[in-house]
Amino acid sequence: MPTITDVTVQDIRVPTSDELLGSDPFHKKPDYSAVLTTITSSSGKRGISVVFTCGAGNDWVAYAIDQLVPLVKNTTLDSFIEDPGELYQTILNHHQLRWLGDGVFRMAMGGMINAMWDLWAKEVKKPMWKLLVDLPPETVVGCIDWRHLEDALSRQEALAILEKSQSKKSAFEERLKETGVKAYSTAGWLGLTDRKILEKINELKANGFDAFKLKVGQDIKFDKARIQFIREAIGPDVKLMLDANQFWGVDEAITYMKKLADFEITWIEEPTARDDVMGFKRISEALNPLGLKLAAGEQIQSPVIFKQMISSGAIQFAQIDACRMGGVNDVMAVILLASKYDVPVCPHGGGIGLCNMIRHFAIWDQICVAGHSGNQLVEYIDFLQEGVFKNPVEISNGAYGLPSNPGWGLEMEPDFVKNHIYPEGSVWRGRQEPSGVTFLAD
Amino acid sequence: MPTITDVTVQDIRVPTSDELLGSDPFHKKPDYSAVLTTITSSSGKRGISVVFTCGAGNDWVAYAIDQLVPLVKNTTLDSFIEDPGELYQTILNHHQLRWLGDGVFRMAMGGMINAMWDLWAKEVKKPMWKLLVDLPPETVVGCIDWRHLEDALSRQEALAILEKSQSKKSAFEERLKETGVKAYSTAGWLGLTDRKILEKINELKANGFDAFKLKVGQDIKFDKARIQFIREAIGPDVKLMLDANQFWGVDEAITYMKKLADFEITWIEEPTARDDVMGFKRISEALNPLGLKLAAGEQIQSPVIFKQMISSGAIQFAQIDACRMGGVNDVMAVILLASKYDVPVCPHGGGIGLCNMIRHFAIWDQICVAGHSGNQLVEYIDFLQEGVFKNPVEISNGAYGLPSNPGWGLEMEPDFVKNHIYPEGSVWRGRQEPSGVTFLAD
Repeated sequence: MPTITDVTVQDIRVPTSDELLGSDPFHKKPDYSAVLTTITSSSGKRGISVVFTCGAGNDWVAYAIDQLVPLVKNTTLDSFIEDPGELYQTILNHHQLRWLGDGVFRMAMGGMINAMWDLWAKEVKKPMWKLLVDLPPETVVGCIDWRHLEDALSRQEALAILEKSQSKKSAFEERLKETGVKAYSTAGWLGLTDRKILEKINELKANGFDAFKLKVGQDIKFDKARIQFIREAIGPDVKLMLDANQFWGVDEAITYMKKLADFEITWIEEPTARDDVMGFKRISEALNPLGLKLAAGEQIQSPVIFKQMISSGAIQFAQIDACRMGGVNDVMAVILLASKYDVPVCPHGGGIGLCNMIRHFAIWDQICVAGHSGNQLVEYIDFLQEGVFKNPVEISNGAYGLPSNPGWGLEMEPDFVKNHIYPEGSVWRGRQEPSGVTFLAD
Repeated sequence: MPTITDVTVQDIRVPTSDELLGSDPFHKKPDYSAVLTTITSSSGKRGISVVFTCGAGNDWVAYAIDQLVPLVKNTTLDSFIEDPGELYQTILNHHQLRWLGDGVFRMAMGGMINAMWDLWAKEVKKPMWKLLVDLPPETVVGCIDWRHLEDALSRQEALAILEKSQSKKSAFEERLKETGVKAYSTAGWLGLTDRKILEKINELKANGFDAFKLKVGQDIKFDKARIQFIREAIGPDVKLMLDANQFWGVDEAITYMKKLADFEITWIEEPTARDDVMGFKRISEALNPLGLKLAAGEQIQSPVIFKQMISSGAIQFAQIDACRMGGVNDVMAVILLASKYDVPVCPHGGGIGLCNMIRHFAIWDQICVAGHSGNQLVEYIDFLQEGVFKNPVEISNGAYGLPSNPGWGLEMEPDFVKNHIYPEGSVWRGRQEPSGVTFLAD
């Protein structure tokens, strides 16, 4: 019976701000970072998870995960497998930690939970999507904290959604092995020139991509010119999504986006504050009639906010993130909610390790929940794979392939880890501006 | 020109779980704790703040505040006074930290901001309420992050609210000096017996209190019996409030509270999830016609959630907390929002140091914002004052007095600090069950 013998937590940061990769109106110079949690079992297997952050604060999450170690160390993997809702509930409803709200607490919780799921997948030698696909519906439903969700989706409804797909699962699985899961790419980081963005789009088009996202929000003239330039260069058949990263107020979002309504935009992402359900609803009511749809999720901190966004029609695309909430358990809840309200789940991939994780959720969604969907798009960013992960995500013809390695596929190259450990790694030693709280604050 | 020469952050915990003080359905055994931040100025003055937590996790917040020190160390107090919105914006919109969401990040931000405000008050030798009362309306409005609030309250509307009270301020101030600010007390902690609660209520009644709060939610029979017992003992003229601490789902809250509608309940607090604006709205629509009103706020993590709760009629009482959000700046924004929508602000005091802080906000609200209000009630808990704070909050005739000492009045007794520092203090040394992540987790 495998027992957890050790848990290590590492702070890994990449100076992406040097090239403005990942830049948006609020995160102008992010250093894409990962808290890498490794759970070692007495069987020799290792469960791994990543929590993505933008640099400073990566250590806050690492500190928090470290404090959760006593909750898993010396427990058995079997007890986790028997009831994968139990550890989740233990952390979520911890008498004292619960006071901390979401944010760091929920992210740390997700880091630990996701590493346990990875260990489980490794023990049974299945990729994460396959482990999830093979779970009995009752187990999935038992993973979820229903306390504050049942007014929008009951346990019974969730069970029914999952049971409906049981007989079709293997056919869907076979089909997906051929098609993969359709991806889109964020090419238009705020700090890049039009020319550089177009170069990147053309390179991705050659690899089968036909959907791209651009960062917008600070200057309507500039944005109009950029969108026009790119739309003309790539033609009308290519999908364009926009992302404002919460830059606008509610009324401002409506005014701004009305001016961009003619450009055939697939969605506008985060037009306002991440937690402004009623604001999103008002924006949707104003923009949906013009053909503009809303997306959000990468900073939605709890399933309860997702519940409201999805069930009220405030968003038309749900962008789950693999490590913003409390791990697999929370994400499965949101995917089930989205299915009931017919909102496509288009996971967020802009980070380090996120693409590796979200494909599993997208595959599970298509096989077990929403069925194969013509409108699911899974974000892909084309950096921080080669040289970072032992098994980089496989993309062909603009789609994610179905991974076959056990677990999430988050094993990092030892040299990458060694060089990027913060602040001791060689990449950080001797830099003028270390990635910390004071760095880039203005 | 006073300069910040030093910032210290201390983890202080009290084993309140021994007596079940502070217990509720989710925090069954909290150890009331404080992150004590002390900012020392070259003038010799010290700015102090407290961030309240329930024990485990206090160190997470302490770690986070410690990381913010470079943003204030070696800056001048004058630069803070000149634009008290600047430091707030620097932290809130930090390119990298912003990714962390609310929770620990916003609480840590509040800890640092509130200590800077305290230093300011000390330098000008004013209690915090008086510093706030004397601020020009433009300065108050300049403290606030309006980006995501103006659809509910514009800068101009906030200015108008503040300007309207200017001519009446000194009259209000004189009147309040006589009456104080009406308080209520949470006497009915979940872990206590009916008899013990009644004893406490009678003791507080003798001190002029006529409004009390009880924890409910887990067992309707038990709650009915408790409320009936206490209502009969104290008579019909005394106000009773209930607090479910988010224990129910939306439909459950409606069903449960309908059964308690006959007991003349002033409010039901946190009937469901802290961030479920639409759920609160549905519950309000069902219960308001029965005379039952809703309160929430101690766990509302951002002004944007408050904006929705207040402007949509989802809550009828706004319970700001002094250190859940980003400090004075965020709290002033919520008090102004509440004023426009005629929602009384009834601050949350169940913690350590909270009573000391919230009275200042209540006084500012009454003098400068909402005017003297017949329905404002400020929470008071009658433990952790004597022997803890050098200047315990003064209560007489069921009301908070107007404090005259400079700042928040959070100076702690040196012996209390020494003995309660976690985990080295004498209170914690040698205990079987230290206040940590594993303690009381089940």
